[in-house]
Amino acid sequence: MTDAATTGAATTGAARRGFASDNASAIHPEVLAAIDAANRGHVYGYGHDRLTEALAERFREQFGEQARAYPVWSGTAANVLSLRAVCRPWEAVICAPEAHMNVDECGAPEAIAGVKLLTAAAEHGKLSPDSVEAVIERVGDEHAVQPRVVSISQCTELGTVYTVEELEALAQCAQARDLLLHVDGARLANAAASLTLPLRSLITDVGVDVLSFGGTKNGLLGAEAVVFLNPRLGDGFEYLRKQSLQLASKMRFLAAQLHALLEDELWLRSATHSNAMAALLAARLRELDAVTTTRPVETNVVFAELPFDAISELQRQYDFYVWNERVGEVRWMCSWDTTEADVAQFAGAVKAAVAP
Amino acid sequence: MTDAATTGAATTGAARRGFASDNASAIHPEVLAAIDAANRGHVYGYGHDRLTEALAERFREQFGEQARAYPVWSGTAANVLSLRAVCRPWEAVICAPEAHMNVDECGAPEAIAGVKLLTAAAEHGKLSPDSVEAVIERVGDEHAVQPRVVSISQCTELGTVYTVEELEALAQCAQARDLLLHVDGARLANAAASLTLPLRSLITDVGVDVLSFGGTKNGLLGAEAVVFLNPRLGDGFEYLRKQSLQLASKMRFLAAQLHALLEDELWLRSATHSNAMAALLAARLRELDAVTTTRPVETNVVFAELPFDAISELQRQYDFYVWNERVGEVRWMCSWDTTEADVAQFAGAVKAAVAP
Amino acid sequence: MTDAATTGAATTGAARRGFASDNASAIHPEVLAAIDAANRGHVYGYGHDRLTEALAERFREQFGEQARAYPVWSGTAANVLSLRAVCRPWEAVICAPEAHMNVDECGAPEAIAGVKLLTAAAEHGKLSPDSVEAVIERVGDEHAVQPRVVSISQCTELGTVYTVEELEALAQCAQARDLLLHVDGARLANAAASLTLPLRSLITDVGVDVLSFGGTKNGLLGAEAVVFLNPRLGDGFEYLRKQSLQLASKMRFLAAQLHALLEDELWLRSATHSNAMAALLAARLRELDAVTTTRPVETNVVFAELPFDAISELQRQYDFYVWNERVGEVRWMCSWDTTEADVAQFAGAVKAAVAP
Amino acid sequence: MTDAATTGAATTGAARRGFASDNASAIHPEVLAAIDAANRGHVYGYGHDRLTEALAERFREQFGEQARAYPVWSGTAANVLSLRAVCRPWEAVICAPEAHMNVDECGAPEAIAGVKLLTAAAEHGKLSPDSVEAVIERVGDEHAVQPRVVSISQCTELGTVYTVEELEALAQCAQARDLLLHVDGARLANAAASLTLPLRSLITDVGVDVLSFGGTKNGLLGAEAVVFLNPRLGDGFEYLRKQSLQLASKMRFLAAQLHALLEDELWLRSATHSNAMAALLAARLRELDAVTTTRPVETNVVFAELPFDAISELQRQYDFYVWNERVGEVRWMCSWDTTEADVAQFAGAVKAAVAP
Repeated sequence: MTDAATTGAATTGAARRGFASDNASAIHPEVLAAIDAANRGHVYGYGHDRLTEALAERFREQFGEQARAYPVWSGTAANVLSLRAVCRPWEAVICAPEAHMNVDECGAPEAIAGVKLLTAAAEHGKLSPDSVEAVIERVGDEHAVQPRVVSISQCTELGTVYTVEELEALAQCAQARDLLLHVDGARLANAAASLTLPLRSLITDVGVDVLSFGGTKNGLLGAEAVVFLNPRLGDGFEYLRKQSLQLASKMRFLAAQLHALLEDELWLRSATHSNAMAALLAARLRELDAVTTTRPVETNVVFAELPFDAISELQRQYDFYVWNERVGEVRWMCSWDTTEADVAQFAGAVKAAVAP
Repeated sequence: MTDAATTGAATTGAARRGFASDNASAIHPEVLAAIDAANRGHVYGYGHDRLTEALAERFREQFGEQARAYPVWSGTAANVLSLRAVCRPWEAVICAPEAHMNVDECGAPEAIAGVKLLTAAAEHGKLSPDSVEAVIERVGDEHAVQPRVVSISQCTELGTVYTVEELEALAQCAQARDLLLHVDGARLANAAASLTLPLRSLITDVGVDVLSFGGTKNGLLGAEAVVFLNPRLGDGFEYLRKQSLQLASKMRFLAAQLHALLEDELWLRSATHSNAMAALLAARLRELDAVTTTRPVETNVVFAELPFDAISELQRQYDFYVWNERVGEVRWMCSWDTTEADVAQFAGAVKAAVAP
Repeated sequence: MTDAATTGAATTGAARRGFASDNASAIHPEVLAAIDAANRGHVYGYGHDRLTEALAERFREQFGEQARAYPVWSGTAANVLSLRAVCRPWEAVICAPEAHMNVDECGAPEAIAGVKLLTAAAEHGKLSPDSVEAVIERVGDEHAVQPRVVSISQCTELGTVYTVEELEALAQCAQARDLLLHVDGARLANAAASLTLPLRSLITDVGVDVLSFGGTKNGLLGAEAVVFLNPRLGDGFEYLRKQSLQLASKMRFLAAQLHALLEDELWLRSATHSNAMAALLAARLRELDAVTTTRPVETNVVFAELPFDAISELQRQYDFYVWNERVGEVRWMCSWDTTEADVAQFAGAVKAAVAP
Repeated sequence: MTDAATTGAATTGAARRGFASDNASAIHPEVLAAIDAANRGHVYGYGHDRLTEALAERFREQFGEQARAYPVWSGTAANVLSLRAVCRPWEAVICAPEAHMNVDECGAPEAIAGVKLLTAAAEHGKLSPDSVEAVIERVGDEHAVQPRVVSISQCTELGTVYTVEELEALAQCAQARDLLLHVDGARLANAAASLTLPLRSLITDVGVDVLSFGGTKNGLLGAEAVVFLNPRLGDGFEYLRKQSLQLASKMRFLAAQLHALLEDELWLRSATHSNAMAALLAARLRELDAVTTTRPVETNVVFAELPFDAISELQRQYDFYVWNERVGEVRWMCSWDTTEADVAQFAGAVKAAVAP
């Protein structure tokens, strides 16, 4: 029915390599091997299997005994379900203007979780106690939504990282105002690798209440998790996950992915590598006068400004996104499978593109 | 951190085989191979890749040129997004009382799609024009929801199959009342295999408007699709899918699964086999006086009544679900990986369990 | 700009009298007087006024010290807000098939409260513990909505009344299954008048958790209330009411209506009268062989079957609804302003219409 | 049951007069008379009456033949239903940060209409084509909500008025970007009175698509309307109104109020008066060095800054709101029933309060 030769070309995909996003990267071989290993015999669906049980234990190892983790398919889902689980209809979520939930989830927090987002000022994507405080107002006024959650991204959408001190300050501010602290951890591994700290130091130890734990951007096929750290939260979440279209029937294969990520520190090895690749790229770019990095390079991404014609020239050769079209700011993202050779070649191409 | 040996045991899962559900089955090797083959290089996420394009072509081959298919993760999602896409807030969906959307989606059609379900009488899970007509009332009355969709499951949750004539009659009825026809095709392949007809004969040719196309129960890791056949429907569905938490970032791996299923008739080979296994099981059960099949065995499932103590005995050895606890009716489901040996052994176990 | 004479005719309305509904009746003079009396000076909006405070006291007198009442505009709103306040997204409400919320609220419980309704068998509109028990299933199964509320209408949409014993049995059943008991009391006054019992005997004393208290059908311009009897419910309801579009800015005029209704037993006088008018009508109809009452006449409504041509003839003279077009069953509803003369004339018209 | 004397005092309310809000004002006598006049006989509910028909004609007189008006109870409801009627789930609404829908509706646009609000910069509450353009981005990007409506308040929450030229510029901008134009006209009458233009000049003639028409703040008991000017919008709105809890059973009394407002130019007489009272107050304040008006006084409200202790002193005597607690900015609002004597006395009190 189909021309196998043509289809083969079409379906295996080009070998083209780029810096578009860490979700443009492949599945890590250890993860694919774990899926394969789980592909034996019959098991009950929906998480009633031993691998899902083992995964729960892996999460407790990382985040402490009280951690309850629920695998879901996507990061948007992890965020939206986190909020849907902890907010009542009139409650609001304070986040940065650049937050993924504010600009990249097509209104799902509003439409599916039913919450209003209140944006607070952020510097390089990071909220501060002061910026949070500034948007808390009209508490007790029935005409206004009531802030309930502070949501931060760690690392941020701009690749920056909250220090432990900054996290503690935010957690303290949240607690003082009776707010919950949510972390969008789509790239939490990169933040932990950047700080050379265990995951729990960034989450449990600073008092985060609920976490969107990311996997897809760090080498999985497609799996994330909602992790409740606060034992008073999450009652009935099984129903909410099912109703919110995020209960996988063949759960063992989501569990296999996340289990592989948490076992043998694959999460850390991959994140450390992708961070190192971004640092390498940034170092190479520093040699070029025509290229200016625009954000602190703290994880696996480099933001830079360069001439428009150089951008055009580079996009002919490599996939990547223009972040701000007005000023010519681009985003170059590394992933677990970015190689030193990739970086060297790309840096060479940048150099050539900006050459007079 | 973890004891590798123990974890190995825990995570590869038991080799235990059963008849619980077709979603308890493994990933078909051709599908896993397709995922592996797609795992090369970097590609843009969210479906902007050549494999997703190729998949669109596969769907057009099966369902006609006007078919537009959108991969999603789960069958519940395919149903809910189908309804959310075609109904306005005051419109209602007519379905069977046993419909998956009515009893197994934890209220997602109501909560996420925002529709009310109107149940019509069904025989062995199948609606008829008469039963549909009986619930159409108060058209134009602003106090009542307005029927907009007839949703049927093909095959049904009870394993029965609508004939082409029955489908045509329902489509005619729907059209006459200005209703859309939706098919929950979580097991559409089994229905087509049962009728030995191409997919399009059950869908496009009879005038179905929108289809939930199933893959997970037929050997995929986890992928389904919303397929619009009616060209007037589905405008803006890209946004709706994203907002409804069903846009995969690494879309190529959903595409790879569905592509493998549609290519080389894997869908048909697998469904034909699982149907045959159910027929074989039913044939063996006919020899047992103490076991009565309670539904026509038309696809890959056998419903049967047998003594309560025999059920208990069998559940010690095999995974399966009791469908109706009051009367002792069980559901035994075959899948693409059920073998003749599985059936023979299980039939033997049933025989032993009901032996005096 | 407009022809005053014509407009005068158009806008004051015909003096035509009928039996269509108790919401076709006028505002009771005592109620209009109360609105007028409240129309003095400036007061803060949204219920921050002394009349609203006084109303709260009236509700406590009727329903006990723990009663917290929130005026809203409509009965549909009272029902939907009651459910929205006490159900989480995956929870369901058990009600009669004929329940107003199931058939006359255009899907608002599903769309606005986000709950699924589970209909249980009802006799003349009344649920029983057995019929409720029959639909409670799959508790703890994440694929199924979880029953949370039993909602009954007192009196029912068919004019029948639950006795105190029946209410106690339902409350006991609800409590045993950890369900809340909601009463749609759009015509609660008629039920209390029928049983010659105080309101609290039907509500607080039997363990009702939340009540939709009706006023509009009993002589108000338009005001109802959500009343929480269970002190553990209703936290944050102020926000929910505002967000659900039911916070009146000029609250004093809703308060004035409900205050007038509860003061000096206007509710009871009016309901007793409308019940008596229905009894009178039923008595007159009993003399006619061609007319059969089809439901127990316990409150202010008579359901009857009579020949189709007689129905047509009567509808030329009087407004009323045909309840069941197939069998020729009509609904004749009395209200506070139905007079004995109205009944006598109408009974005469019926007699003439069915005369051979 | 209640002490009539005490209750009398409690329920008729104090005669205290203030400047808190135009919804703190009374019902205009002509309106109450219209309610009384409509209180004759029996009429079908839900708008199937001659007075509601007559009202439709009044709206057509004001806004043109294509205007279709649907009475609802509240301004929040009018806004939310306008948006719910014209937006699909992934569409967004551009509004000013100060917009009532953004800050005073407790998240109802998000929770009930399911839309995301995008705030654009506003000067004294007014959007401009430039500020609107600045927030239109990522059109066609499935990850981002898609702007669909520009919503402006006329007059604004700060009492300022868009000129016809400004309206035309916004309408042109909206049309060019395929956006609809919605007007929150809770105080539309005050804007029209301020510009001395007919209502239609501000709405129909400039190309507004849908209008929230206000009545409550201009002397009604409680009635507003959603008015569709664009004939392509509003299909099925009857169902949406019912489902959104805004269909009045005794509709004739909402119709009576709005009819009275539109007949004999009551809307204009009342708005002209309240505007004049604000102008008078502003003129008197200009004499006081310690008081600075902070917004252009164009309608019925004065915003002013004055010393904190003067504010405290005045609040002991008069009801009004502090708008901005940090700088000591207050809002003084006039209404149809504000008298010249009220203004004179209040201006005297201000003078005394700020006296050294």
